[in-house]
Amino acid sequence: MTVSPSALEELVTANRILAREGVVDSFGHVSIRHPDDAGRYLLSRARAPECIEADDVMQFTLEGAPIDAGGRKSYSERFIHGAIYQARPDVHAVVHNHSPSVIPFGITSTALRPVMHMCASMGTQVPTWDSRTNFGDTNLLVTNMEMARDLAAALGDRPVALMRGHGCVIAGTSLREVVFNAVYLELNAELQMKANALGPITFLSDGEVEAVLATRRSFTFERAWEYWCRRAGRPYDFRPMEGPLAGGH
Amino acid sequence: MTVSPSALEELVTANRILAREGVVDSFGHVSIRHPDDAGRYLLSRARAPECIEADDVMQFTLEGAPIDAGGRKSYSERFIHGAIYQARPDVHAVVHNHSPSVIPFGITSTALRPVMHMCASMGTQVPTWDSRTNFGDTNLLVTNMEMARDLAAALGDRPVALMRGHGCVIAGTSLREVVFNAVYLELNAELQMKANALGPITFLSDGEVEAVLATRRSFTFERAWEYWCRRAGRPYDFRPMEGPLAGGH
Amino acid sequence: MTVSPSALEELVTANRILAREGVVDSFGHVSIRHPDDAGRYLLSRARAPECIEADDVMQFTLEGAPIDAGGRKSYSERFIHGAIYQARPDVHAVVHNHSPSVIPFGITSTALRPVMHMCASMGTQVPTWDSRTNFGDTNLLVTNMEMARDLAAALGDRPVALMRGHGCVIAGTSLREVVFNAVYLELNAELQMKANALGPITFLSDGEVEAVLATRRSFTFERAWEYWCRRAGRPYDFRPMEGPLAGGH
Amino acid sequence: MTVSPSALEELVTANRILAREGVVDSFGHVSIRHPDDAGRYLLSRARAPECIEADDVMQFTLEGAPIDAGGRKSYSERFIHGAIYQARPDVHAVVHNHSPSVIPFGITSTALRPVMHMCASMGTQVPTWDSRTNFGDTNLLVTNMEMARDLAAALGDRPVALMRGHGCVIAGTSLREVVFNAVYLELNAELQMKANALGPITFLSDGEVEAVLATRRSFTFERAWEYWCRRAGRPYDFRPMEGPLAGGH
Repeated sequence: MTVSPSALEELVTANRILAREGVVDSFGHVSIRHPDDAGRYLLSRARAPECIEADDVMQFTLEGAPIDAGGRKSYSERFIHGAIYQARPDVHAVVHNHSPSVIPFGITSTALRPVMHMCASMGTQVPTWDSRTNFGDTNLLVTNMEMARDLAAALGDRPVALMRGHGCVIAGTSLREVVFNAVYLELNAELQMKANALGPITFLSDGEVEAVLATRRSFTFERAWEYWCRRAGRPYDFRPMEGPLAGGH
Repeated sequence: MTVSPSALEELVTANRILAREGVVDSFGHVSIRHPDDAGRYLLSRARAPECIEADDVMQFTLEGAPIDAGGRKSYSERFIHGAIYQARPDVHAVVHNHSPSVIPFGITSTALRPVMHMCASMGTQVPTWDSRTNFGDTNLLVTNMEMARDLAAALGDRPVALMRGHGCVIAGTSLREVVFNAVYLELNAELQMKANALGPITFLSDGEVEAVLATRRSFTFERAWEYWCRRAGRPYDFRPMEGPLAGGH
Repeated sequence: MTVSPSALEELVTANRILAREGVVDSFGHVSIRHPDDAGRYLLSRARAPECIEADDVMQFTLEGAPIDAGGRKSYSERFIHGAIYQARPDVHAVVHNHSPSVIPFGITSTALRPVMHMCASMGTQVPTWDSRTNFGDTNLLVTNMEMARDLAAALGDRPVALMRGHGCVIAGTSLREVVFNAVYLELNAELQMKANALGPITFLSDGEVEAVLATRRSFTFERAWEYWCRRAGRPYDFRPMEGPLAGGH
Repeated sequence: MTVSPSALEELVTANRILAREGVVDSFGHVSIRHPDDAGRYLLSRARAPECIEADDVMQFTLEGAPIDAGGRKSYSERFIHGAIYQARPDVHAVVHNHSPSVIPFGITSTALRPVMHMCASMGTQVPTWDSRTNFGDTNLLVTNMEMARDLAAALGDRPVALMRGHGCVIAGTSLREVVFNAVYLELNAELQMKANALGPITFLSDGEVEAVLATRRSFTFERAWEYWCRRAGRPYDFRPMEGPLAGGH
């Protein structure tokens, strides 16, 4: 089932933005659920996000089998995406990255929590998945469905899970939302580390986090997307969102 | 009442500088009081500062009603600007941002104080406004005049107020002054955090802060403005300032 | 014995990447063992890595004697490379640098240890060599074979050694591998410092480090190399690797 | 007495390098003693270093009187330069800046000391001058010869002095040397702050600092100068140095 060129280009843009904003380097990846087939997802071949072109985008079953590899090499960790799409019908886009300021929270006992309104999208509790708990000493890569399902279970119905000694996953209802949340997750981590050195932090209250999430609209993601497209040297097209997050402030 | 093209272009430049210098990202905004009508202010439509063009600039009453929207979407937090212009006849430009190094001081009990002469413009005491004190659990956005007046009251007659879990506001007598103060507020915050890790800090004395403010002239802002225009890829035009800050050192 | 233009260009690219990624500044250098003569190595004349061209590459005996100087000035610390090639037949590329986040670990007693899978290539133990131990008060430069052999002995059969008050050396089986490891050594150091400020760190276990090293393939280095070439403005050519690291994940 | 175009262009390049390397922003300045008249120095008109052109360079007596102002505005702090040239016949170039990582050491009691060989040029002891000690509450600017002489006395025969709540001065025998030392002073400050958070630091010994200074040659400055010219978009010309630092390693 073919995908529209604009959807492919938007996925390319997402990769370039994540690279430009320092949330991925040579590694990390972002996928979308197939717009017309909930049983598939779209993800680039194994390549650095900054280098990805539309022709690199492949289709996979939710079990991670390529539909149309055509000689292209897949990410060994693609299973992360499928397992989350299987467990979470509400999810339409997933980012996996090694976002640098987020890593320290995955390897210490300090909880990552929202310090400002822009970053409330991580929710009030961010779990940490440790591959070692159920799989022992591995190379930490999520290279099969069993590990990926274990990670998806740790994520539960939340938007973010940290991966100890590895990185994190961000799941959301649209591509622009997960990119937004990946960038602001990194920012929150950076700000929280700085504030932590100054003294005890007043985090957003649970009520405030809920209020941000209840009132956030796609227009917020659009404003950032236009800016990030410019920084990444990519064309910007306004894409009004459907569903509960439509509209804007 | 129309505004000169040069005033509009200067406001565009201010937006681009704030973006280039890392004081705003996709969010944050800067306004000027209408040069010929003290009851209005000029502010872009809701757009990332780096993307703003002269055609994006709108006029608002001090209550935040757009004069000439023409289908353009307003910043939901525009009320911040009007409330400050109402309370402070001396103020002719306002910045609201989420300046990253400033955030930690708004969420901890460590007071932001001047550590060097360039940053003395924050004054000897920087208050923190917490939306939760009078408005409870909200999404933290200042989306009406009631909240904005509460913030303006916290600001009082000072140049800077922090906003807990959100950002800050900077008010001044000219556009070039508030941009200058926004950039050096961020720098002071960064330097103070670094120094704080080394040991007790010798801050500027109150007398030193007063001496800096008493002797600072518009030429200081001009020197920085030329530099920032170059970095932002914007043309520079020297604009001699009138009033108490005119002249230079 | 002449060297292929592509090998020279790859060495130039390595220099440019190390500069672009902030692992070297005006100083630091990278060499390869001569592809056809295990008793020689290739290293630029004394020049900042960002400025190096193919014509700058010189050949040296393992004792550090230039084969074909032609008036070109050698790095005074070239001996580092030869001493490691002498002691380690498995090594085909060496980086020496002053990687900024790594320096603090060489001058304090905090051990640099892998905090994430990408950085496991430093191994489970990173020694620190102190020139002062055997050579007393010097300018810290490794300017003869005696000092270089002392450093190589400290390195032993490991991939990385820190140099107190100076920098570090990274030794590996290919150019792309040592560049990769130099960049991720810097990242690990940065992440470890950040995590250290948050509390006790869960490092990778020894078993995890071994698992990463046992399963890492040249494809990992290729993915990063393509990205770094793009950032450094250099052409990318895929170079399938031979030997134990060949293939990919 | 006219100055060669190449000397003027070198001074312009020094300004651009200091800006590009983040050691100055809109403020800070660098001068040279007049090559043919020890009683004069060359310094730009009051302008941001990144914007300076050859036509901006003015001549001053050591008392700070402009020789040929021609309507150009002088830096109000030019007196710093003259006072140091008066007190130090060995000095031929001076930088004054607000180098960001250096500021914290001027406002706390933590001494700035060399942590690596590249940064040994600050010497074994860096004094801090506090304008308040002899001049009370001022705007901290060194705007007359009396203050400048007080600062020069604090500097003594050393290469660097910090200025509390303000910045620092770096004095040396050549322009390329002071630019080099300004950049590596900033780096040392950054590295020392990072190391300080990890635990007690092993600094360079006094003997090591002396050994670095005794063996450093102008070639070291040349290697960096070429690199920084490239980064600053300025042409590079090799300038062999005369005197005790001539030659290279």
